[in-house]
Amino acid sequence: MKLLRVGAVGQERPAALDRAGRLVDLSGLVSEIDAAFLGGDGMAEVRAAVDGGTLPEADPTARIGAPIARPGKIVCVGLNYSDHAAETGAKPPAEPVLFMKAPNTVVGPNDQVLIPRGSRKTDWEVELAVVIGRTARYLASPAEAWDCVAGYTIANDVSEREFQLERGGQWDKGKSCETFNPLGPWLVTADEVPDPQQLGLRCSVNGILRQDGNTKNMIFGVAEIVHYVSQFMVLEPGDLINTGTPAGVALGMPEPKPYLRGGDVIELEIDGLGRQRQPVGTA
Amino acid sequence: MKLLRVGAVGQERPAALDRAGRLVDLSGLVSEIDAAFLGGDGMAEVRAAVDGGTLPEADPTARIGAPIARPGKIVCVGLNYSDHAAETGAKPPAEPVLFMKAPNTVVGPNDQVLIPRGSRKTDWEVELAVVIGRTARYLASPAEAWDCVAGYTIANDVSEREFQLERGGQWDKGKSCETFNPLGPWLVTADEVPDPQQLGLRCSVNGILRQDGNTKNMIFGVAEIVHYVSQFMVLEPGDLINTGTPAGVALGMPEPKPYLRGGDVIELEIDGLGRQRQPVGTA
Repeated sequence: MKLLRVGAVGQERPAALDRAGRLVDLSGLVSEIDAAFLGGDGMAEVRAAVDGGTLPEADPTARIGAPIARPGKIVCVGLNYSDHAAETGAKPPAEPVLFMKAPNTVVGPNDQVLIPRGSRKTDWEVELAVVIGRTARYLASPAEAWDCVAGYTIANDVSEREFQLERGGQWDKGKSCETFNPLGPWLVTADEVPDPQQLGLRCSVNGILRQDGNTKNMIFGVAEIVHYVSQFMVLEPGDLINTGTPAGVALGMPEPKPYLRGGDVIELEIDGLGRQRQPVGTA
Repeated sequence: MKLLRVGAVGQERPAALDRAGRLVDLSGLVSEIDAAFLGGDGMAEVRAAVDGGTLPEADPTARIGAPIARPGKIVCVGLNYSDHAAETGAKPPAEPVLFMKAPNTVVGPNDQVLIPRGSRKTDWEVELAVVIGRTARYLASPAEAWDCVAGYTIANDVSEREFQLERGGQWDKGKSCETFNPLGPWLVTADEVPDPQQLGLRCSVNGILRQDGNTKNMIFGVAEIVHYVSQFMVLEPGDLINTGTPAGVALGMPEPKPYLRGGDVIELEIDGLGRQRQPVGTA
């Protein structure tokens, strides 16, 4: 099932794409695609209603928002593709590198990305994003992680490299600027993604293909990541994990590095998860 | 005014201490001490009702929860007291070091702190915590920050040093374990804290005074921090900033460092902001 949220910013309503590709309104069934819904037992009812074909159509021209309400937290995995680690000059990590993004960085998949004031090094990162559907706390094995995954979507883990790497301290400083986490278009439920480690993912800027990777090249796969994170913090329904980006970011290119500028257009896609398109503006 | 939340975990109700020290129930006036309340205009009404003396008493024996609902984000400042930077072997930073804690680490001021599984180096950190009351985005000066501060409370920025410093990557990994952010007992509104840079703050473990600092020794003060953070992310009502800890943590002591163990008791206090007392258990 493909769940989404449509409508103006802050007024998104839950919706779904049915098997015929028709956009249907879920707001008569559920109020939000949030922790309560994802962690509850409403998914089966929604699925039955969508398959039943009786739901009202939603406006197919409406803006698409992020496919989930604001997450309780966004956990990110750094350097999780060996080619990306190499391009940044880092060794592949022995265990997952974790950092966080502010949850209010989430915007819709086609919303504007704003270059922060004072930024010279704003960069793109296409990532497979995992949405948590069940509390994960000290999972005993990676195999247990699958039950905790509600589904998958696309994240652009937008990053300001000077803030992240040259302004003292921790990466979070360059990861949490407003609009820095475009998300969507769909939350594709886990049953429709038989192998999340076999997904091509791509990112273009101004029509130039910059990232062209595959989740099979993750150093730590989805199940390992969820299991690992659960040893250090409690993952809850509605939380988001950005699983890392493959090679091809501006940071890894020769000078002059093609960091984002106002007027650029970023396009991202992951096999089976749809596409994003963000115009770049300035804050 | 001293706002608090009392009741069982997950069932806390808003309350206040009136000028006579009587605990009064605010649940007839406000549903939560959250972003909507802190960012709205309900504070004046609550203050008038508390001063009016007509509110019902709340159960003074009830558990005290965190004084705010779960924050949208927790931003932390690292190495913000020169004596603490020195004890950890770090230079005083040229600009604030920022990192994040997962918002679901927040617990009440007297709740149990759990040593994570596999932990050998769980440590304490008493900190002045700032609660945001108005959106802060690209503030033009530190002076503008004061209008964005709803008030102050005590945070214990509990930290697992091996997870933070020896397990690869970013500090967040050792900062977000469950129960790692005891908060409270009160949200003391900013008008009752005339100078947040003149507050003694102390932490004892098993009755031994370990930290005995003063917020006058912060490298970056509250207004500078709020202004600075607002250049990198959007602070929203209900967000929390932990402003750093003075010297005296276990990490900074000679071997064998007295890291926390099950059965320990941590007591924290800040002048005018009350006291916390956490028994230490194991996850």
